[in-house]
Amino acid sequence: MKKMINAVESLLEESLNGFAKAHEEIITFNHQPHFVSRKQQKKSNKVVLISGGGSGHEPLHTGLVGYGMLDAACPGQIFTSPTPDQMLAAAQAVENGAGVLFIVKNYAGDVMNFEIAGEMIDCPHETVLVSDDVSLPKDHSTGRRGVAGTVIVEKIVGAAAEAGASLAECKTLGDRINENTASMGVALSSCTVPALGKPTFDIGDNEIEMGVGIHGERGREPMDLVSASEMVEHLTIIIDQELKPQPGQKVLLHVNGFGATPLMELYLVYDLAAKFWQEKGVEISRSLVGNFTTSLDMAGCSVTLTLLDDEMITLWDAPVHTAAMRWGC
Amino acid sequence: MKKMINAVESLLEESLNGFAKAHEEIITFNHQPHFVSRKQQKKSNKVVLISGGGSGHEPLHTGLVGYGMLDAACPGQIFTSPTPDQMLAAAQAVENGAGVLFIVKNYAGDVMNFEIAGEMIDCPHETVLVSDDVSLPKDHSTGRRGVAGTVIVEKIVGAAAEAGASLAECKTLGDRINENTASMGVALSSCTVPALGKPTFDIGDNEIEMGVGIHGERGREPMDLVSASEMVEHLTIIIDQELKPQPGQKVLLHVNGFGATPLMELYLVYDLAAKFWQEKGVEISRSLVGNFTTSLDMAGCSVTLTLLDDEMITLWDAPVHTAAMRWGC
Repeated sequence: MKKMINAVESLLEESLNGFAKAHEEIITFNHQPHFVSRKQQKKSNKVVLISGGGSGHEPLHTGLVGYGMLDAACPGQIFTSPTPDQMLAAAQAVENGAGVLFIVKNYAGDVMNFEIAGEMIDCPHETVLVSDDVSLPKDHSTGRRGVAGTVIVEKIVGAAAEAGASLAECKTLGDRINENTASMGVALSSCTVPALGKPTFDIGDNEIEMGVGIHGERGREPMDLVSASEMVEHLTIIIDQELKPQPGQKVLLHVNGFGATPLMELYLVYDLAAKFWQEKGVEISRSLVGNFTTSLDMAGCSVTLTLLDDEMITLWDAPVHTAAMRWGC
Repeated sequence: MKKMINAVESLLEESLNGFAKAHEEIITFNHQPHFVSRKQQKKSNKVVLISGGGSGHEPLHTGLVGYGMLDAACPGQIFTSPTPDQMLAAAQAVENGAGVLFIVKNYAGDVMNFEIAGEMIDCPHETVLVSDDVSLPKDHSTGRRGVAGTVIVEKIVGAAAEAGASLAECKTLGDRINENTASMGVALSSCTVPALGKPTFDIGDNEIEMGVGIHGERGREPMDLVSASEMVEHLTIIIDQELKPQPGQKVLLHVNGFGATPLMELYLVYDLAAKFWQEKGVEISRSLVGNFTTSLDMAGCSVTLTLLDDEMITLWDAPVHTAAMRWGC
C-alpha cells in the first residue's frame, strides 16, 4: 500500500488538523469527540444542519461545512460510521433555537447511530435520509444507498435554512430533493482502505464495475471495459428510467469523480451525459463536475440527476462558503 | 490502460466540449484553433492574460479562465505544447487595448511557441516565465520547470489586471511572484498518457519519486517509500533553503494533488508542511489545498510556498470567478 500517511491510526486526526488549519476562517475542529463546526456567525433561530459518515469521501461532509450549507459534520474513521456522542456534541455546539436537521446517507451504521443521537438530544430534530443510488432496486432490503446526491441535498436545504425555513420545511424539502435525485456509478479500479492495506475488491485489467458503491462495494455487475460512451449510456439509462424527466424539465447534472479520475475524463463523461438528456429535450439548468463524494483513491465516477423546480434553483444559486463549494461570498 | 474515454484522438475535444457546456456562463470554447476564452464582460483597456500548455494538468489552465484571472487559455494535446496559431487567435479574440501578458510554464516547446506567437501579434505584449520547480538547480541548462506555482501567478496577476494595472506592472508583478515562489513534488505512482497506453515510468512497490515533474518525468531521486512526515520534510527543506523565509514573513502555502491522491492525504501533507514553517516563526497567511496542477492520474503531490507582501495578499483575496477557483463572486 502506497499512501502519504504516517500511521493508519493517526491518519484521520492528522488530516483533520490540516483541514482545520487550511480553513480556519470557515470551521472549527473539535477533537474530543471529533466534529467540525461552522465558525461564521449565524442568525439565531436558524435550523442547523448536521451530517456525517465514514471518512474517505472528502470533501463530503467536512468540506461542506460553512455559510449556506452544513453547520457541523461528524467524521467517522474511514468508511466507518461516526458514533452518537459525536452527533450529540455537534448538536449541542451548534443548535440555536430552531432545531436540528440530520442529513444521513442510508447505511445501517449511520442510520442507527444518528437515531441513537436523536433519542439523546433534547431539542426538536428531524432526519433526511439520502438514498439516491439507483444501482439497487427501490425495494432492496436495506433500501438504497446514499451517494453523490447528498451534496445536492446539503446545498439546497442549507440555503433554505440560511433563508429562515423552519425545521418542518427543511425536512420536507430534503425529502423532496432526495425523491427527485438519482445516481449511478462505475468504477475502473478499487480503492485501498489504509487499515486493510490492499484493494477492497479485485478487478481485471479489462473489467469495470457498474453500479459500484462509494465504499469499494462491488457493483451490480462486472462488465468488460467499454468506451466512455457505452459506460455513460449504462449509467444514464438507469437514472432516466427512475426519474423519467420530461421534455422541458429543468435538471441539475452532477458528474462526481471517485478520487483518482482525471478531470479531463469527468468533463468527457459530463459531455456525454448532457447530450443524452438534451436529446430528450431535458433542460440542463445547473451543473456540478468534480470530486465531491469520493471513495479514497478509486478510479471512476458517478452521474447524478436532480429534477429541479424554481425554488430549488434559487436555493442552489444562493451564496455558499465552505472549503469545497463557494460562490456568492 | 483503463480510462473513461472513447478514443485517444477525440479525448481532448470531447473533454473540452463537456467543460464548455458545464461552464457556459464563464467561458467560450473556440474549436478551430482550440482556445477557451472568458465570456464575462471586461473593462476596455484591461491587460489580458493568456496562458496555455499541454493538457492533462486540469484544472490548469482552462479551469482558471474567468473574471479576475485568465482571459484565455490554449490547451495543447496531452503533455504537448499548444501551437502559435492558438495563441495568436486567442490574443486576437480577447485583446482590448492594453496589451497581452503571456504566462508560460518554462518548457522548451511552450517557450518557443509562445515566442513565435509573440512575434506574430501586433499589439504590445510581455511574457512571464514561471519556473518554480526547485527540484532542479537554478543553473540547470534549460532552467527550472514551471509547476504548481503557476496558479498563484495567474491568480495574483489576474487580480492586478482586473484592477487596472498596466502591462509593465503586470509583467513586473508576475516576475516578482515567480522569484518568490518555490515548489517541489513527490510521486507515488506514474501517470498513464492515453497515447502511450502504459505508465510513463516504472516505480517499485516500495519506491517514491522525489522531485518529480508534472509530465511523469522521473524525479531527482528515487527513494524508498517513507512516512508522510519524512516525505514532507524532504520537500519543505529544499523549498526553505531556496526561499529562506524569515520569522514573521507572510506566506501562501499550497499543497497540490497530482490527480489520484485522496484529499485526506493532501490535508495531512498540509498539516506537516504548515508545522514545518510555523515552527520557524513563518506566518502562513493564505492556503490552497486541492488538485490544481495535475498530472493525469499520478498519485502524489507538490508543496508550493510563496513569500507574500501586502499587495500580493490583497490581490490574492480579490474576487475571482473561474471553473476551479471562485470567491467574492
